[in-house]
Amino acid sequence: MTVGGESLPGGARDSEPMKPQLKSLNPEDMSELTSGLTPVVVAHVLNLTTRHRFELINLTQRVEELVGKTGIRAGVALLQSLHSTAALFVNEWQEALLDDFRTLLEQAVRADAPWRHNDPRYSDCDRSNAVSHLRALLLGSSAMLAVRRGQLVRGTWQSIILAELDGPRTRSVSLQILGS
Amino acid sequence: MTVGGESLPGGARDSEPMKPQLKSLNPEDMSELTSGLTPVVVAHVLNLTTRHRFELINLTQRVEELVGKTGIRAGVALLQSLHSTAALFVNEWQEALLDDFRTLLEQAVRADAPWRHNDPRYSDCDRSNAVSHLRALLLGSSAMLAVRRGQLVRGTWQSIILAELDGPRTRSVSLQILGS
Amino acid sequence: MTVGGESLPGGARDSEPMKPQLKSLNPEDMSELTSGLTPVVVAHVLNLTTRHRFELINLTQRVEELVGKTGIRAGVALLQSLHSTAALFVNEWQEALLDDFRTLLEQAVRADAPWRHNDPRYSDCDRSNAVSHLRALLLGSSAMLAVRRGQLVRGTWQSIILAELDGPRTRSVSLQILGS
Repeated sequence: MTVGGESLPGGARDSEPMKPQLKSLNPEDMSELTSGLTPVVVAHVLNLTTRHRFELINLTQRVEELVGKTGIRAGVALLQSLHSTAALFVNEWQEALLDDFRTLLEQAVRADAPWRHNDPRYSDCDRSNAVSHLRALLLGSSAMLAVRRGQLVRGTWQSIILAELDGPRTRSVSLQILGS
Repeated sequence: MTVGGESLPGGARDSEPMKPQLKSLNPEDMSELTSGLTPVVVAHVLNLTTRHRFELINLTQRVEELVGKTGIRAGVALLQSLHSTAALFVNEWQEALLDDFRTLLEQAVRADAPWRHNDPRYSDCDRSNAVSHLRALLLGSSAMLAVRRGQLVRGTWQSIILAELDGPRTRSVSLQILGS
Repeated sequence: MTVGGESLPGGARDSEPMKPQLKSLNPEDMSELTSGLTPVVVAHVLNLTTRHRFELINLTQRVEELVGKTGIRAGVALLQSLHSTAALFVNEWQEALLDDFRTLLEQAVRADAPWRHNDPRYSDCDRSNAVSHLRALLLGSSAMLAVRRGQLVRGTWQSIILAELDGPRTRSVSLQILGS
């Protein structure tokens, strides 16, 4: 049983890196995954409203549903945060670990340091959100995942996570899928 | 009025995450953005000369112009720094914040630490640029952005920034665009 | 002569950012690299077995061989670690610098801190690998490289590096190539 995080198939923690259907790909083969159709580009914008100054949100299910709706069997999916104070990353969604992500960011980028972005003598931004930009810098603003057999490629213990670093507010994440 | 940084349309800082034309995409629809044409790949190399040991350069306008020239309406654009001591990232281009990016990197990777890459007993590199490699490690070496309606997808407060970490010198950034 | 790291053509360290054939691209032209063929998607999974708790592995040659086998002349290659405790990044493969990567990660994420992911009161994970997840967070889980003229685009001093952060164990890296 998993405390806090998602319950996922796959047995013992960390022992099953890939979901079953992907394991049927013979790793020594390179598989050409074409449908004979001209590739298309499908675009979508995920909108969400965050509720706290710092918040982690699991986007995996929403993204997987959207990928499924496209009908694209093979390609790539690009997710982009459209904000400089909300980041995207891929890692494990487990409650205790989410706490640790937060702690690490707070240690790596100190809120009590004299950041110039927060200083009205140098900056016109009045949100005092320098640490939000800096933590986003460390985390990254995009995530790219392959699509195979109509599904996102990810390990059993991987989720797509949006980090709200300066909420609460509305946020937009672009999803662009290329493939056929 | 913006101190230092670019003046951008969109009114109040941070209140307009997306440029107007992208907001017209109904977020509940997934839009297939195909032109009926077979997708192409367009390649370009941006060359630039940096002027300081540490320097941040805004590549956004150059990249947007290049994307426009391709005529590609929908796809993805991949930017890669071809160097291990120059990084690429997406965040806000504001003078005070650029100072903070620099400060964070200096705090996270200390120049006065006994890095082995700088030690002639272990390394043949005589540039004493261990911190350049390590800061690049934290920032990342590539950026991927969607292309829609012929334009790069990015939020109002997002710019594509090259971080020169071991200049001054010439730098090359690969731009590869797939789409139609 | 390079101590420890790969011996690469290109003369003086850091003076040749790009391998010769890529320099023949006139940087002021945008080159359309199409073959007239409908783009395809080729998928592969690299499997490897790591030998230590912390280990850096150079994947460059394997990936380049696989790209070559696809016959794809132009496109993009997406590499994804399918694990939350093994990361992917692009930087220089030099023995002294690999030691410095490790040192930086140990300084940035302290093994002796009271991470909740390691605390049985809050977490069902018994691997005590909080630092592995957190270091992977800083490094990133994917790498995207362009393909041109049938070859991966990378600078002379860039290698694709897998960081095993919680080994030893088997690891899977997805490679997805789009192009024609």
